[in-house]
Amino acid sequence: MITKNPDFEKTIRKKLEKQFFMHHIGFDLTKIEPGYVEGELILEEKHQQQFSYTHGGVTATVADLVMGFAAYSLVSPDEGTVTSDLKISYLRPGSGAKVIGRGKVIKAGNLLHFCEADVICLSETGEETLIARGYATMCVVKANTH
Amino acid sequence: MITKNPDFEKTIRKKLEKQFFMHHIGFDLTKIEPGYVEGELILEEKHQQQFSYTHGGVTATVADLVMGFAAYSLVSPDEGTVTSDLKISYLRPGSGAKVIGRGKVIKAGNLLHFCEADVICLSETGEETLIARGYATMCVVKANTH
Amino acid sequence: MITKNPDFEKTIRKKLEKQFFMHHIGFDLTKIEPGYVEGELILEEKHQQQFSYTHGGVTATVADLVMGFAAYSLVSPDEGTVTSDLKISYLRPGSGAKVIGRGKVIKAGNLLHFCEADVICLSETGEETLIARGYATMCVVKANTH
Amino acid sequence: MITKNPDFEKTIRKKLEKQFFMHHIGFDLTKIEPGYVEGELILEEKHQQQFSYTHGGVTATVADLVMGFAAYSLVSPDEGTVTSDLKISYLRPGSGAKVIGRGKVIKAGNLLHFCEADVICLSETGEETLIARGYATMCVVKANTH
Repeated sequence: MITKNPDFEKTIRKKLEKQFFMHHIGFDLTKIEPGYVEGELILEEKHQQQFSYTHGGVTATVADLVMGFAAYSLVSPDEGTVTSDLKISYLRPGSGAKVIGRGKVIKAGNLLHFCEADVICLSETGEETLIARGYATMCVVKANTH
Repeated sequence: MITKNPDFEKTIRKKLEKQFFMHHIGFDLTKIEPGYVEGELILEEKHQQQFSYTHGGVTATVADLVMGFAAYSLVSPDEGTVTSDLKISYLRPGSGAKVIGRGKVIKAGNLLHFCEADVICLSETGEETLIARGYATMCVVKANTH
Repeated sequence: MITKNPDFEKTIRKKLEKQFFMHHIGFDLTKIEPGYVEGELILEEKHQQQFSYTHGGVTATVADLVMGFAAYSLVSPDEGTVTSDLKISYLRPGSGAKVIGRGKVIKAGNLLHFCEADVICLSETGEETLIARGYATMCVVKANTH
Repeated sequence: MITKNPDFEKTIRKKLEKQFFMHHIGFDLTKIEPGYVEGELILEEKHQQQFSYTHGGVTATVADLVMGFAAYSLVSPDEGTVTSDLKISYLRPGSGAKVIGRGKVIKAGNLLHFCEADVICLSETGEETLIARGYATMCVVKANTH
């Protein structure tokens, strides 16, 4: 996709420093392309809900992060993006070694970027299971308005 | 609302022990009624995103927790609930002293419980700001199937 | 709520003339206030799906109409609103004499208006049943851009 | 995908007779496969909203229809499906010669079928424009319960 920021990767990497909640859950980005972002976390007990599966809040956060940065990779340096609407469809319970998020922009506009994401659990043996689909509308804002 | 579990509060309190991700973000329940649950967390740097506001993943997790437990308060002791769909509308940026979640079941069924939530930021001076609305469909499952 | 268009009702009434799909399903507005709109249709066979209940598309259209006009009632005369995201939670099957929609803006912004709606079936004897909840994000656009 | 009804196409064709709202908007199915359904309507003035674009209610109805029948193609002859949640992301304004809907099941379960859809406008010269993405959760019900 076409980005308005040639230094998008550097801009995102710099923003990550202050992504305290992302660090708190142990998530990090592994791929940054215009309109497409991947990241992952190593599953630990702290990510679980009462049935020992990955908590829905972890899944939602991972989806929000990869879609938010996918949108952010496209805007100009004086713009930012904020999540307006986030929807998660929980397809299967999640467990294994890692949670991987893959987010992409499916339509970039002047005001809104529509995004979709796969949230995947990677087993100890390297098998991928799609545990959720994420859908988000990201609003483009002037960087000084937030 | 009518619950199928007279000991709903005790059942939920017991489940909380293994809600590791809830503890990891510092959230706790403050009110449990049939079909209605409240909870809160004290805002710290770890809950922030890159613009120093409450991360959307925190908001989504809080909404999921209070709606999930609101649904869980109604089912029979041999049943559980899992989130099928979660949607968050982010209305305003969040900051202040606390994040409060208030979740309720708006329609309880045999298979699905539809829920809505307010996510609120409480300022240092006790003023409430509605930062998000949450909407969830919770699926009723036999406790031994998950 | 505060509107930027003192003639909002007149503006909306005028727009209705070209709302061909609204007329096609037999829907009409019955109340227009700043940020709040009601309307209804008389249920006929043409509104049914295969099990003789009100079709989900009718419900979605009614929700979209009342939320869209609720948002439109607030913007300035040189602005319009378009639906960005629409979500319908189908709570109960719909049948009876009428379908009523009640839409309101829950948060008005410069770029986005967040809305919620009740979709209700009215029985022959005047009893109301909430058949769906609607949630929409309406995007404010310059009237000459669409 | 694997269907529980070998006669799925015949079952769906029979159900279409009583799909009054589908006929009312002029929509018809053009392809029925296990877990995948396509259909279309010829755009007329009656499908328009006030700015002469395809009404959001038409788009929502088309998405609901193709996702609903995609889900219905998989269940056993004594089961049906009802829409639990429907979400439409409106990506671009719609106009042209036809509206085409393409719906598929992305995850089939015992209780819930998760679906996604493309809604496309076809220009007079045969060019396709993706105007919306649809997402739905379909609930599997015993045929005699509705």
